Amino acid sequence: MTKIRTIGVLTSGGDAPGMNAAIRAVTRAGIYNGFNIKGIYRGYDGLIKGEVKPFTTEDVSGIINRGGTILKTARSKDFMTPEGKLKAYETCVREEIDALVVIGGNGSLTGARDFGMEFDFPCIGLPGTIDNDLYGTDSTIGYDTTMNTIMVCVDRIRDTANSHERIFFVEVMGRDAGFLAQNSAIASGAEAAIIPEDMTDVDQLAQFMGRGIRKSKKSCIVIVSESPKCGALYYADRVKKEFPEFDVRVSILGHLQRGGTPSAHDRILASRTGVGAIEALRQGQRNIMVGVRNNEVVYVPFSECIRTDKPFDKKLITVLDELSI
Amino acid sequence: MTKIRTIGVLTSGGDAPGMNAAIRAVTRAGIYNGFNIKGIYRGYDGLIKGEVKPFTTEDVSGIINRGGTILKTARSKDFMTPEGKLKAYETCVREEIDALVVIGGNGSLTGARDFGMEFDFPCIGLPGTIDNDLYGTDSTIGYDTTMNTIMVCVDRIRDTANSHERIFFVEVMGRDAGFLAQNSAIASGAEAAIIPEDMTDVDQLAQFMGRGIRKSKKSCIVIVSESPKCGALYYADRVKKEFPEFDVRVSILGHLQRGGTPSAHDRILASRTGVGAIEALRQGQRNIMVGVRNNEVVYVPFSECIRTDKPFDKKLITVLDELSI
Amino acid sequence: MTKIRTIGVLTSGGDAPGMNAAIRAVTRAGIYNGFNIKGIYRGYDGLIKGEVKPFTTEDVSGIINRGGTILKTARSKDFMTPEGKLKAYETCVREEIDALVVIGGNGSLTGARDFGMEFDFPCIGLPGTIDNDLYGTDSTIGYDTTMNTIMVCVDRIRDTANSHERIFFVEVMGRDAGFLAQNSAIASGAEAAIIPEDMTDVDQLAQFMGRGIRKSKKSCIVIVSESPKCGALYYADRVKKEFPEFDVRVSILGHLQRGGTPSAHDRILASRTGVGAIEALRQGQRNIMVGVRNNEVVYVPFSECIRTDKPFDKKLITVLDELSI
Amino acid sequence: MTKIRTIGVLTSGGDAPGMNAAIRAVTRAGIYNGFNIKGIYRGYDGLIKGEVKPFTTEDVSGIINRGGTILKTARSKDFMTPEGKLKAYETCVREEIDALVVIGGNGSLTGARDFGMEFDFPCIGLPGTIDNDLYGTDSTIGYDTTMNTIMVCVDRIRDTANSHERIFFVEVMGRDAGFLAQNSAIASGAEAAIIPEDMTDVDQLAQFMGRGIRKSKKSCIVIVSESPKCGALYYADRVKKEFPEFDVRVSILGHLQRGGTPSAHDRILASRTGVGAIEALRQGQRNIMVGVRNNEVVYVPFSECIRTDKPFDKKLITVLDELSI
Repeated sequence: MTKIRTIGVLTSGGDAPGMNAAIRAVTRAGIYNGFNIKGIYRGYDGLIKGEVKPFTTEDVSGIINRGGTILKTARSKDFMTPEGKLKAYETCVREEIDALVVIGGNGSLTGARDFGMEFDFPCIGLPGTIDNDLYGTDSTIGYDTTMNTIMVCVDRIRDTANSHERIFFVEVMGRDAGFLAQNSAIASGAEAAIIPEDMTDVDQLAQFMGRGIRKSKKSCIVIVSESPKCGALYYADRVKKEFPEFDVRVSILGHLQRGGTPSAHDRILASRTGVGAIEALRQGQRNIMVGVRNNEVVYVPFSECIRTDKPFDKKLITVLDELSI
Repeated sequence: MTKIRTIGVLTSGGDAPGMNAAIRAVTRAGIYNGFNIKGIYRGYDGLIKGEVKPFTTEDVSGIINRGGTILKTARSKDFMTPEGKLKAYETCVREEIDALVVIGGNGSLTGARDFGMEFDFPCIGLPGTIDNDLYGTDSTIGYDTTMNTIMVCVDRIRDTANSHERIFFVEVMGRDAGFLAQNSAIASGAEAAIIPEDMTDVDQLAQFMGRGIRKSKKSCIVIVSESPKCGALYYADRVKKEFPEFDVRVSILGHLQRGGTPSAHDRILASRTGVGAIEALRQGQRNIMVGVRNNEVVYVPFSECIRTDKPFDKKLITVLDELSI
Repeated sequence: MTKIRTIGVLTSGGDAPGMNAAIRAVTRAGIYNGFNIKGIYRGYDGLIKGEVKPFTTEDVSGIINRGGTILKTARSKDFMTPEGKLKAYETCVREEIDALVVIGGNGSLTGARDFGMEFDFPCIGLPGTIDNDLYGTDSTIGYDTTMNTIMVCVDRIRDTANSHERIFFVEVMGRDAGFLAQNSAIASGAEAAIIPEDMTDVDQLAQFMGRGIRKSKKSCIVIVSESPKCGALYYADRVKKEFPEFDVRVSILGHLQRGGTPSAHDRILASRTGVGAIEALRQGQRNIMVGVRNNEVVYVPFSECIRTDKPFDKKLITVLDELSI
Repeated sequence: MTKIRTIGVLTSGGDAPGMNAAIRAVTRAGIYNGFNIKGIYRGYDGLIKGEVKPFTTEDVSGIINRGGTILKTARSKDFMTPEGKLKAYETCVREEIDALVVIGGNGSLTGARDFGMEFDFPCIGLPGTIDNDLYGTDSTIGYDTTMNTIMVCVDRIRDTANSHERIFFVEVMGRDAGFLAQNSAIASGAEAAIIPEDMTDVDQLAQFMGRGIRKSKKSCIVIVSESPKCGALYYADRVKKEFPEFDVRVSILGHLQRGGTPSAHDRILASRTGVGAIEALRQGQRNIMVGVRNNEVVYVPFSECIRTDKPFDKKLITVLDELSI
């Protein structure tokens, strides 16, 4: 095994708040431990094209509190091809990069796993995604910030819902995972959540609404996971038909969920896992994601963390049911 | 002229942050000066139906920092009819309400003006609307908070726009007035604003985008005033066709723009105009809106403040042009 | 064992954001499961004096997003005496309260343990304290919010520190535990933290400062745990003497660290543990605290959670060291 | 008169949020209008020492939302001496700087006035100070942000004050001007403000407290303007002696009041006055401050704006009195 002298770091996939804190942590911990650090711009695309810059501690100064990623990010189609991966490898050889730290979600870490195996190249992943859909870490970098962003938005919408006595369907991100929807519903005191893991029957929803609204509540907020077919607009239409007397509105939070200064939780998670990535490389680890479980830094083999079936705690549905009375 | 003993207060139209601070100010300043205060729920509808409750200083305790309105609000169709107005007047007689303070926007103050004239009833208006479309006051209660809310959202979207090098069209509220769009564009450092007062030609926009993007900027944010025909989606579609190589996205901020804890500016404006409303009634004023101009509390006749042509400062367009290079 | 029909809930000790979310969860989950709920005001003092009120679901409506505690709180000296405890028990008998849920920190849960044992009375604790000094739960209700509050304050101070090239000693809460200081230092990108678990020698600090400042950094922020003898003022004075050329300032964050709308994390923690407290009573549990470990609700015997030696992860000190270069 | 080709820009005195937005506006509007722009670091000290850098539009990219000042700032003693001013002038000659834009408060604009007169040098001032103590502009850059920062802090403290039923004395900045104290008291719903313009007699305060607290209020917040002799600690001590039964606490907000992302109001004010400064130079103006009055950009001769007696609206005291019942 080659001795690692230079480590490349990149961000990939959808941007997540805390990615900059992770870049900072990898860079500083790397330099602290005697490595050279090179920043790779625009994810795997930049690796293919050779958009590489040597990083000093100053390059990552003053970024811990900024959303987005100073390294830019992209979803790369080229990297999925053998030619693309080969070019990426050639960049590593040319730039004398001996190991990669990849900050991203499910798809990005799958890319790192494949690249690492194909070229026998040391790759370490950090869980950077707002969707919280990686296995083996209690949460992912960006998830807590996005939760708080959604909560603040729903708190605002609640002011209008109460003042006008309306029903709101609020659509939130989360791709195929209902973590954001379910937990933001609990956090914002919403009356219900509609999530992929437990698809709500419209009749059930209508029943619930009719019961709750008629009894005591004059306003109501339902959080809906984004979905091509049955997002917030779909449910709102159905409820409007069922209850024409209700004043039903829709709010699709959209892209504002991604950005913003990262929360304390995400900055600490990014800092600890960033330091952990360097420590892992020093120990000779590869093909693992660094996460935090039970307040401890852990190494999770790629094969485990990118399973697509992160278990959803059904008890959270009970919590919401009991608290929305 | 009857001596005023009891003052009714209501909120009407779209809710605006700071309405609660205004209710508090009217109530406390009223009681301080020896009046009885009665809260009227659900705007003019509640006045028609008699939803009235005597208010003490405790009823408005702890509400200065809350969005929405504890009095609820509505847009009343019944109040536009002679029968509706008559019923509303009967409520005032029955509840021994001698004067009204109405907190709302253009339409709500028009209602107050008509009601006051028809029944020779003392009505005072407070400018409560996020749209800033009332004449005679430097700003309206809620406008500053909404400006800050939009700005924070665009700051977040900028993180993603920069990270992915995208073009975003962000749609904001403002009805027929471009204050929110133009000023939030300046505040958020957006590249352009599309406002009703100065409708942008799509070709012009395309030219601008092509120039800016190709030169140096890799991302771009355009703020668009809401509009049934040509909102953010319309412009985004046109630009996508013109520049298929750009990654164009749309974000419609929607209802989250209304709520939230009011800003210092709006709380102070609400407090000063609320105290001013009571002072106006003590001086025998009626049919006026209380505003703040040039840091002074002013009384503006209804006939002046609800003109629909609040002048838009064209220099603001120059400011944005010069700063988006 | 008496069948539990009525559950009393109180908050005790220093207020923490999320206490209201916990009161709401206990009340609603209690009513959902068929119990009567009584709110007890002003902590154990109110229990002694009989300040008790039956709670409905409406009593806890609209409080999930508010800081402080609607039940008020206090540190009770009387409850430490046998007479005080007896009177408190008499209130329970008179009010037909069959079980208590106590929301508070170390001292408050100790009180619950003693009361429960002395009168064979079912007591459940919820970890409500910003200090995070309870054993058996990954974090306490209020800790995450306070972390974010401190972080935002230090982000602000950093703006001034950078602009004026100053050294700031920022004092934060935490009593005898350094969690807040150490983790907020990591989250805010501070250069160092001084914590009770690892008391920094002034000479060491001076050495560190001299090295860092002279090398590259022109400004510097050190987070200091509050302490009667050696808080921020003490260290600032020592450093001023050592380096008269530095512009050294002190900021004591003080009471603003406690309040504010709770974070998503704290609202969810409060909701889950509040529901968990009712579930525990239904299962016949008593003398336990409900916490969350590893994303699961857990029951921790009082004897375990109020040990005073919650282990401090020394690796966090390494994280800060590596990242402050 | 020399034709102006190159404009220098500097920030001076205490940092204020919005200074970066002003630097950005001066730079971009300058370049837009054909000038060269040079940034001068560390205020007048940097001008003396020649710390000057040519600025492009990219140098001010992404700074509109950041607190502090990228140009650094300082209070310069040397610039008060004839030798200092001469050296500063020599820098201007050497760097071919033909005009200065100075962003700062009272003292900084006085320096600009003196320098401009002594060397017949075109100087334009922008009102950059959180204290709002400049005459001729409705508000100063930074004042609105700091008002909101204080308000949020007091909102938090209110949570604890209510929960524990305490009296808080909160000390805020403002130097010799009570704007921040008086208006933040109104904005946060505080019970009283103690300001330099209307020094409160302790006996009066005691009377007020006794009356209010005994009647209905169980908690109370008093905002106190910073003052070497009689700040918050002084008043708290006196009240403690008078009312030993009250639980009295002090919070000194300190340096966190300066930083943070600027509010929409301050970013727009900075943008408009920054553009106005360039426009003023194009028109041949000099020795003026650019402000905004009544929503219009105005030019105020230095001699007028740095008078020390900016009038304090006594009606604001009435507003607070009436609303704190």
